[in-house]
Amino acid sequence: MRNIRLLLQYEGTRYQGWQRQTSSENTIQGKLEQLLSKMCNEPIEVMGSGRTDAGVHALGQVANFHTTSTMSAEEMLSYINEYLPQDIAVLQVTEAAPRFHSRLNACGKRYCYRVINSAIPNVFWRRYALEVPLKLDVEAMEKAASYLSGEHDFKAFTSAKKGKKSTVRRIDKIDIAREGDRLTFTFEGNGFLHHMVRILVGTLLEVGTGKRKPEEMSEILASGSREKAGALVPAKGLTLMEVFY
Amino acid sequence: MRNIRLLLQYEGTRYQGWQRQTSSENTIQGKLEQLLSKMCNEPIEVMGSGRTDAGVHALGQVANFHTTSTMSAEEMLSYINEYLPQDIAVLQVTEAAPRFHSRLNACGKRYCYRVINSAIPNVFWRRYALEVPLKLDVEAMEKAASYLSGEHDFKAFTSAKKGKKSTVRRIDKIDIAREGDRLTFTFEGNGFLHHMVRILVGTLLEVGTGKRKPEEMSEILASGSREKAGALVPAKGLTLMEVFY
Repeated sequence: MRNIRLLLQYEGTRYQGWQRQTSSENTIQGKLEQLLSKMCNEPIEVMGSGRTDAGVHALGQVANFHTTSTMSAEEMLSYINEYLPQDIAVLQVTEAAPRFHSRLNACGKRYCYRVINSAIPNVFWRRYALEVPLKLDVEAMEKAASYLSGEHDFKAFTSAKKGKKSTVRRIDKIDIAREGDRLTFTFEGNGFLHHMVRILVGTLLEVGTGKRKPEEMSEILASGSREKAGALVPAKGLTLMEVFY
Repeated sequence: MRNIRLLLQYEGTRYQGWQRQTSSENTIQGKLEQLLSKMCNEPIEVMGSGRTDAGVHALGQVANFHTTSTMSAEEMLSYINEYLPQDIAVLQVTEAAPRFHSRLNACGKRYCYRVINSAIPNVFWRRYALEVPLKLDVEAMEKAASYLSGEHDFKAFTSAKKGKKSTVRRIDKIDIAREGDRLTFTFEGNGFLHHMVRILVGTLLEVGTGKRKPEEMSEILASGSREKAGALVPAKGLTLMEVFY
């Protein structure tokens, strides 16, 4: 069996997220499996590096699948892009080592969350950024971010139900960049819990508007309580930028 | 009567262009006039700096209208943005001099045409850029552009029917910038004929692929013949960036 690795881009607006649902399919994984099964003439299961939620975008999602097909990687690339809907594209098709697994081998990810910090709507960013009309104090948000970087138990920053799985993760970098009225929050880390980036951004924005103090981050982390953290911000501002291996 | 000046942004994808049509309205001007007439409680005619064709976008379109309304500019800004569809936004509302006319007073414009130079589709630029899979020689296109800069009769580069109006225009700048696989053609000039930017880009792209030589530009200009110039490229790559006064 060959093991084929895909580098993918998608605009999440129209989809119920990455993960295949039961029957009525409007998921990225579902679309891909349908198409690849047809292309390879055998049932194909696609493994992704991780789920993205409904409405979340990806510039660099990684996935892989096993097949007996003899098509070349190049032929696959053009076949797939010919038949995929316009809001999903495959950027690379490569032959992977037999044991490569896009999720289990991933050692980190980079996400961006975009905010248009203006009372005026931005027509071109409306699908990819959250509009925040209130003035934001970037310095205060940076200070708050410094409490969140490093290895912590992020239980307070996830919507995942309490379970046996560890909620400890390591954030290597939180960067907040302003370009005109556009703010980009970049997160790099060894892994992110369900909704973690969006709750982190929601909490940082509450620091930015003065509703919270940067120092509160330590308390929230220590509490392990979802209620202590900030709001979950909308999916449309979030993009999976890169998966590290 | 007050004279109100608007700075506008729109994504042209869904529209039949700027200019109001007879009855069934799906134009930017039509949408604006409908909304402003309601807001001002009197029939409003909106003058734009120029038409943009169906599918063309704008980051900095300028328009103006006369009204007896006593609403403040600030009130107008938030009213308009509340009721406009999501793909049109007003960035500024200002009080203009009584004689200000957005078209007659314009002394120049800047347009950008965007190309994704790759065989791989780009999901996020699909509405705003033309995909060109062939290798493009930027140096050759720059050389060709140097023949087109300056004051010329651009009759060969317009779809406008022959008339009495002058087809002489001055192009102050043609810039071709590459950023990864994205090429941006920027045009600044004192005015542009109907379809002029899109035919200029179509012709430059034919130089870029080697189908034409840069030197042919002089001949095409001299011929004044539309057939000698290159293809009209799709509207979606074009954005009106700024109007100069």
